[in-house]
Amino acid sequence: MKQLRLVLPLLAAVGLLVAPVLSQEYVREVPARQLPLPATASPELRSFIQAGSAAIWNDHPATAAEWRAWVGRAAERTRAGLPALRGRMGVTVEASQVAGVNVFAVTPPEIAPENRNRVLIHFHGGGYVLNPGEAGTPEAIMMAGFGRIRVISVDYRMAPDFPYPAAMDDALAVYREMLTTHEAGRIGVFGTSTGGGMTLALVLRAKATGLPVPGAIAAGTPWSDLQKVGDSYFTNDTVDNVLVRYEGWLGDAARLYANGHDMRDPFLSPIYGEFSGFPPTILVSGTRDLFLSNTVRVHRKLREAGAVADLVVFEGVSHAQYLFSPDMPEAREYFRELGAFFNTHLKG
Amino acid sequence: MKQLRLVLPLLAAVGLLVAPVLSQEYVREVPARQLPLPATASPELRSFIQAGSAAIWNDHPATAAEWRAWVGRAAERTRAGLPALRGRMGVTVEASQVAGVNVFAVTPPEIAPENRNRVLIHFHGGGYVLNPGEAGTPEAIMMAGFGRIRVISVDYRMAPDFPYPAAMDDALAVYREMLTTHEAGRIGVFGTSTGGGMTLALVLRAKATGLPVPGAIAAGTPWSDLQKVGDSYFTNDTVDNVLVRYEGWLGDAARLYANGHDMRDPFLSPIYGEFSGFPPTILVSGTRDLFLSNTVRVHRKLREAGAVADLVVFEGVSHAQYLFSPDMPEAREYFRELGAFFNTHLKG
Repeated sequence: MKQLRLVLPLLAAVGLLVAPVLSQEYVREVPARQLPLPATASPELRSFIQAGSAAIWNDHPATAAEWRAWVGRAAERTRAGLPALRGRMGVTVEASQVAGVNVFAVTPPEIAPENRNRVLIHFHGGGYVLNPGEAGTPEAIMMAGFGRIRVISVDYRMAPDFPYPAAMDDALAVYREMLTTHEAGRIGVFGTSTGGGMTLALVLRAKATGLPVPGAIAAGTPWSDLQKVGDSYFTNDTVDNVLVRYEGWLGDAARLYANGHDMRDPFLSPIYGEFSGFPPTILVSGTRDLFLSNTVRVHRKLREAGAVADLVVFEGVSHAQYLFSPDMPEAREYFRELGAFFNTHLKG
Repeated sequence: MKQLRLVLPLLAAVGLLVAPVLSQEYVREVPARQLPLPATASPELRSFIQAGSAAIWNDHPATAAEWRAWVGRAAERTRAGLPALRGRMGVTVEASQVAGVNVFAVTPPEIAPENRNRVLIHFHGGGYVLNPGEAGTPEAIMMAGFGRIRVISVDYRMAPDFPYPAAMDDALAVYREMLTTHEAGRIGVFGTSTGGGMTLALVLRAKATGLPVPGAIAAGTPWSDLQKVGDSYFTNDTVDNVLVRYEGWLGDAARLYANGHDMRDPFLSPIYGEFSGFPPTILVSGTRDLFLSNTVRVHRKLREAGAVADLVVFEGVSHAQYLFSPDMPEAREYFRELGAFFNTHLKG
């Protein structure tokens, strides 16, 4: 009661006076609403919001064959656009292998002098199902081009054929091999969505394996909790026009990849990991992002653990929407932020 | 069309394929929903969410007399709790004047050695109407206590009796006077909500007046746009249980204070200011905050201007809710973040 006596006046201090409600079943009722186009977003972003919900968001492939076909159709659409994107950024992309894992080596037309001895490892997004092969390279292409730095984009194995932990085994194998040619402090790791979650999980795996951690990492709107746990899974439900809802293909993909493993395993949902000893980390999200909580929960936990952790939240941006075009200001800001962060924190 | 050819494959790259919609009247329809208590928030925060909407959120005082009475009732409730809060934090509070402006000098039981030559100036929140006199001191009391640093809390003049620019005139007068006894680099400025907006506007006023800027500032969920402009005014409408909606007392207070001035005046809505030369700034918001966009828009603009700008977003937190009790973890984290930021960036 001492606490309550103190608290009630403080509520009044900010203009509140409330009656405590004690129901365990409390829910907050939020009426239907119409969200206007944010005048505060770029015209390019507004055009992506105007485009409505992602056409595939509520697809539910039911068998492994249906997943493969669904993934294949999406990948084909992406591949068709890659020559233009590579041309726009001036980069070259070469298929290769590192430690037996398929990768793409992405090289900009000119490597910045300060980046000569540095390399970035990239994990693409797509819920551990989408973007196999070259379809996983757009973010790596833009990072290499905007950041004038070499990027190794990892074509890790995915569900349904290779569920957990195949993706993380591939991630660790590539990182371990890169350590034989690069000092850890000169290696950066980054990715968006699933790639952001894998970036965090890789650091946890490196720690658990006794490997040095990378010099710096960037986790764009990381899938840090594969369960529907976190405030923005609810507050931004249907506000986000990319993922739209956990109950779309996303939740199916989580179950497909986890394959019966406890989703609270930190290598599946890195938010449940132990964050001491993390390298400097930059996290990125948007006000409409279904993964806003997946992002800020990691940020809070990193700062509580004493890590250098930067947070960027873009106005009006849904999940991973800052990647949609190299010509949108939000994309340029994203890659500028990442480039500056890696430049500050990686060894020269 | 070149851009569109590039963009569509990129949408596919993250699992999207959309048809462009060109209506100027586009709105996104979001159905009614029930938000559960976030399991990821502290028990203390959950109790504040369970308490429902702030009782006063939809009050609409119609005359100056009604405003005064409404403000007086809220202030009385707050004042009743101050002895307990001062006791809990061990601080002393002394009424005083600086440059003819009423202030409260808040002194912790022990000043940290590194803070001996430093001082913080505090502007309280309350929409330029609430929290006159001692009712404006809770945040200053907690900052002094948690941060072991001297705080001068400014009891600036407010609407309805003193509309814009009285509050900012008082803020500038206090700052100018403090500069006669403290080097600018040893002065920090902070506040939440209206106090956060005033903190930003003070830097703009200092720049316009040719005064040196403070060493560092903290703007908690700043009221950076007094208009209903910004994505979260819409996305977090009714999701936030403190302010709830712009159409509550908040919008009335904006009009009362602006008193016919263009709300895009940067000293009213600092988001429209020019942000070059800003000192290191930390910004704080929450995933449910009606002012999430007011916060992240400032953060983006500061970083684009090259300033050191840190962003913190608390899971599940509505507007300014991190101040509700010194015993909630979110409050301790807020004051720990501010203390560390000031300690890093203020001169010793």
